[in-house]
Amino acid sequence: MPSPIDFYFDFSSPYSYIASEWIDALAARHGRTVRWHAILLGATFRVSGLKPPVEHPLKREYVLRDFARSARAEGVPFRQPSRFPIATQNAARVFWWLCGSDPARSTAWARACFRAYFGRGVDLSDPEALKGLAAEFGLDPQVAEGVWNDPVWKERLKQANEAAIAAGVFGAPFFVIDGEPFWGNDRKAQMERWLSQGPF
Amino acid sequence: MPSPIDFYFDFSSPYSYIASEWIDALAARHGRTVRWHAILLGATFRVSGLKPPVEHPLKREYVLRDFARSARAEGVPFRQPSRFPIATQNAARVFWWLCGSDPARSTAWARACFRAYFGRGVDLSDPEALKGLAAEFGLDPQVAEGVWNDPVWKERLKQANEAAIAAGVFGAPFFVIDGEPFWGNDRKAQMERWLSQGPF
Repeated sequence: MPSPIDFYFDFSSPYSYIASEWIDALAARHGRTVRWHAILLGATFRVSGLKPPVEHPLKREYVLRDFARSARAEGVPFRQPSRFPIATQNAARVFWWLCGSDPARSTAWARACFRAYFGRGVDLSDPEALKGLAAEFGLDPQVAEGVWNDPVWKERLKQANEAAIAAGVFGAPFFVIDGEPFWGNDRKAQMERWLSQGPF
Repeated sequence: MPSPIDFYFDFSSPYSYIASEWIDALAARHGRTVRWHAILLGATFRVSGLKPPVEHPLKREYVLRDFARSARAEGVPFRQPSRFPIATQNAARVFWWLCGSDPARSTAWARACFRAYFGRGVDLSDPEALKGLAAEFGLDPQVAEGVWNDPVWKERLKQANEAAIAAGVFGAPFFVIDGEPFWGNDRKAQMERWLSQGPF
């Protein structure tokens, strides 16, 4: 049984959103499953001394253009949110809470969050908007809010960030296949090659 | 007559080297030519507040692995130089000097520099090594040395850096096709699509 593909993402990362739309199908084509990891890029950026690309002059203008173009290249609907980037810890804590009992449901939640933020501009950092999204997804919004305020799930997300950093993650999307790291939505072709032919 | 593709590179950039091996063929497939621009990433990094990827913890280990893997993915011979990154202004000044009278010859020089550094570990920042490479290329090494010490060609390179920054360049390789910017060796597929189908 081949090992799952590890997929690290932050809900505020457009390239993570695009990758989230193709990763499961890519894995399935090669008889693999995907282990999704919601993390906070802020934590990995601190360790690496990095900043979001939109905080750099020149790079900012480029990536805003490239987000949309890369989404079109993959056929993924995309609308640049007006509030960007945003804090995503609440959505991520709900992800880990769901993951504890039902990983498939946590993946569905991750997709719902990505599509809401990058498809419809739902601000995941706004507790009221996130409660509305939780309700739409079939969760009790009060329960969801209880989860993201619960020290247990705060701690679970912290552990996920630390595990990601220990695995070498410094950006998102980040993938690990049989110990081989791949960073970026644009490493799709190399991943496909690795999965079909093995190490190259 | 379609406009040329602008290709910005630094001789110390592995991804620029890889791109230098495919850009002319890609352009030719679409009836285009390529205008090569030797620049110094140090100048664009200063404006953007960026640093070389190998100066960031975690990212460093990843990119060193990815340089070699990306070269293999393109079938380009690659050996990580032990001195890396290096100062490339002397090689770049010779490039602009040759470009003034014979752009094709400057392109050939650029290829010779990239292949020497990333194929055989020739340290382009070492004046003796660079004079040796100039002689191998068919230039008088004393003349080449005179060029890189000449304020005229220092100024020409400075202008090239400033023009690149004005064009939005913050990293390398960087390409502009009909006003559309593409950053990275990994934007090859999007460039190919743009050239064959037009804007998407």
